[in-house]
Amino acid sequence: MRWTPDGSGVDVLDQTQLPERSIWRRCGSAADVADAIRRLQVRGAPAIGIAAAYGLAVELANATSLAPAAFGETLGAAAALLRQARPTAVNLAWAVDRVGAAAAAALAGGTEAAAWRAWEEADLIHEEDRAMCRRIGEYGLALFPELQDRPLRVLTICNAGALATGGMGTALAPVYLAHAAGRALRVWAPETRPLLQGSRITAWELSQAGVPVTVLADSAAADLMARGEVDLVITGADRIAANGDVANKVGTYALAVLARHHGIPFYVAAPSSTVDLATPDGASIPIEERDPDEIRRGFGRLTAPADVPVWAPAFDVTPAALISAIVTDRGVIASPLAAGISALYG
Amino acid sequence: MRWTPDGSGVDVLDQTQLPERSIWRRCGSAADVADAIRRLQVRGAPAIGIAAAYGLAVELANATSLAPAAFGETLGAAAALLRQARPTAVNLAWAVDRVGAAAAAALAGGTEAAAWRAWEEADLIHEEDRAMCRRIGEYGLALFPELQDRPLRVLTICNAGALATGGMGTALAPVYLAHAAGRALRVWAPETRPLLQGSRITAWELSQAGVPVTVLADSAAADLMARGEVDLVITGADRIAANGDVANKVGTYALAVLARHHGIPFYVAAPSSTVDLATPDGASIPIEERDPDEIRRGFGRLTAPADVPVWAPAFDVTPAALISAIVTDRGVIASPLAAGISALYG
Repeated sequence: MRWTPDGSGVDVLDQTQLPERSIWRRCGSAADVADAIRRLQVRGAPAIGIAAAYGLAVELANATSLAPAAFGETLGAAAALLRQARPTAVNLAWAVDRVGAAAAAALAGGTEAAAWRAWEEADLIHEEDRAMCRRIGEYGLALFPELQDRPLRVLTICNAGALATGGMGTALAPVYLAHAAGRALRVWAPETRPLLQGSRITAWELSQAGVPVTVLADSAAADLMARGEVDLVITGADRIAANGDVANKVGTYALAVLARHHGIPFYVAAPSSTVDLATPDGASIPIEERDPDEIRRGFGRLTAPADVPVWAPAFDVTPAALISAIVTDRGVIASPLAAGISALYG
Repeated sequence: MRWTPDGSGVDVLDQTQLPERSIWRRCGSAADVADAIRRLQVRGAPAIGIAAAYGLAVELANATSLAPAAFGETLGAAAALLRQARPTAVNLAWAVDRVGAAAAAALAGGTEAAAWRAWEEADLIHEEDRAMCRRIGEYGLALFPELQDRPLRVLTICNAGALATGGMGTALAPVYLAHAAGRALRVWAPETRPLLQGSRITAWELSQAGVPVTVLADSAAADLMARGEVDLVITGADRIAANGDVANKVGTYALAVLARHHGIPFYVAAPSSTVDLATPDGASIPIEERDPDEIRRGFGRLTAPADVPVWAPAFDVTPAALISAIVTDRGVIASPLAAGISALYG
């Protein structure tokens, strides 16, 4: 993510093109950013929060010539647009609301001041995210056993790395810190159908950083566990309910069941903004369904009959009981998760 | 599968092109058929057995002008080539050996007679397969509960249907019989990465037959089970060990663990030729590893960094303890599977 000094736009790396091409998209309005989020050009719960924050700031930077009332309307409309870009990740709304509230509070000092506050707040969210990633990494690293005789083998899903956040990632933050500390490790990256964030993005960013990574089909993870090739599983989260149920990329729940079956620890790493006390449990989390053609024509070829229905949930819910611990920037929440969440966030 | 009256070739439907195109490949030699099997243009354990049987018959039909000794050498070389085309499915070798033995036994009567016997035996294997599929369907149908108020929801993986056999399939045979009997059902077809036999082939053949089918990502099957949307799982098998362990398409083992976790019956349907008493258990089954580019560049786009390693097993092993019953053309083998297999096949 990068933005122009005059505040006229925000550039996002189009992650749908990785690993074939590194293309930056210039977003000059909130609608542009919402579109980039909907298309998953920018994805990952923390990253879409940051992008949306800048999207609102860009919109307001372009609206300073309006009268304060019209400026306020622009703010409301842009915030609503961005909030609706994707329904599951809670920190999208959280980031938009934070920037919107900061700008609204400053509007008494004029539209220039309000637009400036919006940028400031978006920058702050970005900065905080970077710091949060590091703290998640430090807390998470304590859960990674130090092995003398062989590399630690870590299985993840989707991408909860640098490209999903403003910093070094969430699930991958302890991986990066372990690697930086000279500890040997190997990451297993399931492809993550339908959009292949695991093989396209996680494999790309880890190999860029020199961390050994191996790609596999999502369905092969079970066999890998049965072969004793996985020491721990760690994933990100799009929303954490008050009882510790976690919504994350579809396939996460399968890994949690499989990890339990094989006696492998299953960790979730996410920033505090992902914890949603207003959502009592997983059943209350809205689960986005994606366009069936992401499965049917995802690779540019027709891979299912055009007239056959496709069920395409973007996320699933992993019940708290299957999660060994949740790592946030405030610490490690051990089982029972509900009590730990209440203690840290209640 | 179809073959020419003069025995000069066998035509196989190129399943790698489905559902976009229906293209038949003419195979005029054992090497052609072995190549079609290696490329998965023909796939499914029973179907590759039949194709290999015809492949050997084609080779011998073209070798009748040789002296008997040279004919015998051709037979041996072609059989070896076909046997090695894929390592996991046991009925490939079984079918090749059967045709080879029939031809060799007839060679005393001349090369024409031997070549004729080879065709006859290949036809017989094909016919037997068709009858076996029907019996598997009938035995399997008895395991499908009759529901009054809603369709029965059946989850499978890969393709163990008509296109995997010489008849109506193995895992899908009871589905076709239930449908023909007017029973309402719905099939869930996970895509089956990397080669998408579920979305490309199972969805295609079921929709052609008018059976309601819905495609989903492999990783979404767990969530489907958690939602109570799956009544039973039924898969094919590439090899069944003496103790009841089953090798089948990678991802089968994950479904078995998930079905157990959710209290859902997990069935395997396969012809008797899949039962391999010489293999004591799953650990003794050779598991084919496929070309990493089937994952990395499977659909013409680079979906993982070119220099990142990929682990690409074609199959996994489901332990007997997770299998509710195995359906063969000789009946239903209930748990404990080892005793049932010994009783039917020992």
